[in-house]
Amino acid sequence: MRLAELSARSGLSTATIKYYLRAGLVPPGETEGATWARYDESHLRRLRLVRALTEVAGLALDEVRAVVAALDASVSEHEARGIAQWPLSTPVAENPSDDSREQVDALLARHDWHLEAQSPHRRTLAAALDTLEQLDFPATDEVLDAYLRAAESVAAVDVPRVVAEADPIVAAERLVVGTLLYEPVLTTLRRMAHEVVSGRG
Amino acid sequence: MRLAELSARSGLSTATIKYYLRAGLVPPGETEGATWARYDESHLRRLRLVRALTEVAGLALDEVRAVVAALDASVSEHEARGIAQWPLSTPVAENPSDDSREQVDALLARHDWHLEAQSPHRRTLAAALDTLEQLDFPATDEVLDAYLRAAESVAAVDVPRVVAEADPIVAAERLVVGTLLYEPVLTTLRRMAHEVVSGRG
Repeated sequence: MRLAELSARSGLSTATIKYYLRAGLVPPGETEGATWARYDESHLRRLRLVRALTEVAGLALDEVRAVVAALDASVSEHEARGIAQWPLSTPVAENPSDDSREQVDALLARHDWHLEAQSPHRRTLAAALDTLEQLDFPATDEVLDAYLRAAESVAAVDVPRVVAEADPIVAAERLVVGTLLYEPVLTTLRRMAHEVVSGRG
Repeated sequence: MRLAELSARSGLSTATIKYYLRAGLVPPGETEGATWARYDESHLRRLRLVRALTEVAGLALDEVRAVVAALDASVSEHEARGIAQWPLSTPVAENPSDDSREQVDALLARHDWHLEAQSPHRRTLAAALDTLEQLDFPATDEVLDAYLRAAESVAAVDVPRVVAEADPIVAAERLVVGTLLYEPVLTTLRRMAHEVVSGRG
């Protein structure tokens, strides 16, 4: 398809698409003569991914680039799904304390959770525990266990839905977008649950 | 205590405290002569709440004012805990579709969740379902059931911890701050869970 059709089907202006092409967020089309290029469904899908990450998830273009680069660089299905999540991790300015790192490692070990050694989520979680400690809301192991089990039960319905996708890169894209898009559902239900559970008390 | 001590104990500058006093986020102290006022522990606690809401949770001052006003206006323990959460609800620009509203109502009824009729979370959740539908990630009842159960299991450890507070307003404050502060713990664990669960598949 030509740029005009790509624009119509993605809902993005041709100017925006050209900008994403120049920024390397979308791979170039196949050149057809001097003035135009041909695009296919993979371009459309990538544009939808970029649009969801920017407009809905509110990521900056640098963060989108990191997600896209992780997808493009991954060599296996599982790697694509695992690594594609990493750039979503909240950046941590200061090094987390040893206590918090150990608490995170112990939590993961207790539940037999095998995370890649380089996974940035470990550091993000340890930093969050430091903040809670400083603000007089320390996280006990019992609370973390409950949170982990809740996260696992949610992932148990999230992951099989994307694994059904035949194309591993599509599966990874859907997992990343789904991770971000379903976050407000979980946080809103938690706020409802606080209202409901404290009413029962 | 005087303003200088309030500043030292809250970690906020006297200029910031005066600004919060003028903005009505903190109740005035007891006037002691023409040039100074006396403050007590309730002022210190309120300043810590405002600080947590702005610095950690990233709320705008208008949103902080709404939380504080809900706390001040509440007449019962449960009301304080329930209503104080409401201003945290993500504002929704467009009216959610009837389909999404009905899906939310059916979800709550299925799990016997009694929410106040005016609770804004219902609307926030319905709007989130509309977005998911538009982006080709429709939420099935099965998925929503799993998310709701996860939220409930987390609330079951969150709420008893604050209910232990003797002062109902302190309990409400801790629930609001805890709601916000523990959100990154849950979202990070969910991202970890996606990595872990998709690795098992």
